[in-house]
Amino acid sequence: MVRRNRMTAAVLLGAALSIGASSALSGSRESTPEGEIRTLLTMQTEAWNRGDIDGFMEGYWKSDQTEFVGAKGVSRGWQALLDRYRRDYPDQKAMGHLSFANLEVHVVCADGAYAIGEFHLQRENDQPAGVFTLYFRKFPEGWRIVVDHTTVFPSTSSK
Amino acid sequence: MVRRNRMTAAVLLGAALSIGASSALSGSRESTPEGEIRTLLTMQTEAWNRGDIDGFMEGYWKSDQTEFVGAKGVSRGWQALLDRYRRDYPDQKAMGHLSFANLEVHVVCADGAYAIGEFHLQRENDQPAGVFTLYFRKFPEGWRIVVDHTTVFPSTSSK
Repeated sequence: MVRRNRMTAAVLLGAALSIGASSALSGSRESTPEGEIRTLLTMQTEAWNRGDIDGFMEGYWKSDQTEFVGAKGVSRGWQALLDRYRRDYPDQKAMGHLSFANLEVHVVCADGAYAIGEFHLQRENDQPAGVFTLYFRKFPEGWRIVVDHTTVFPSTSSK
Repeated sequence: MVRRNRMTAAVLLGAALSIGASSALSGSRESTPEGEIRTLLTMQTEAWNRGDIDGFMEGYWKSDQTEFVGAKGVSRGWQALLDRYRRDYPDQKAMGHLSFANLEVHVVCADGAYAIGEFHLQRENDQPAGVFTLYFRKFPEGWRIVVDHTTVFPSTSSK
């Protein structure tokens, strides 16, 4: 019995490790709202880092009401945001390597959440960085960013 | 009957106007979550404009977890925010006259909401302005700001 229990434990441990590994590999932690939101943000950075702005934009609510807030004020609309990203980041060199740090996800209710974090962009000639707050709503297709407020740290911006 | 109905209508109209007037005078639009949040923000600007930082701070969740996000990164805690306001705005001249513009309030669920707007500060020597997003949660004492993300427009800041 002891031996069988040990084997069972080993099998269970193996299964758990296997699930953990596959979860880590796929980036999937979709069992909780926080996990779903973190997965969405991971998807966004991965898309950005392969130069895929369309993939990155999948994280935003595809609506005229989606809002982007920053040093230029408030702008509206998923398409306008996509156009701006394409203009400001015309190629992979301009996009650089994106990473997030100190990410917090706060789930407020069944279909509302927000996240706070820092972004860091590694580029050949500069390293822009800043803070963001993101408001999420849950739609039938999943959690999406409805408001992105980003403040670039003054010392890091080349603009 | 016609006359009585007219009288009833007049009485009802009078009552409605009276409620409307008293509501406008007291600044109270507390019948909806949006109204409660707008009332809170009006209370804040009124407190600011009489030099009452303590009154202004009543709008924030009195917690170590309250977050303020801006060009200096993320800082935490109601007390730290109060200390910073007192340091940056030592007197009514430094506080100037605060007003909000283009204020939007989005109620996400029974105890979660956010607001987006512009602030304008009229002072003797400068007119700082910027955009903010505020996250609110509803507590037993009412709606309070749990996250304040403010970006000052670069051209308006004297700092």
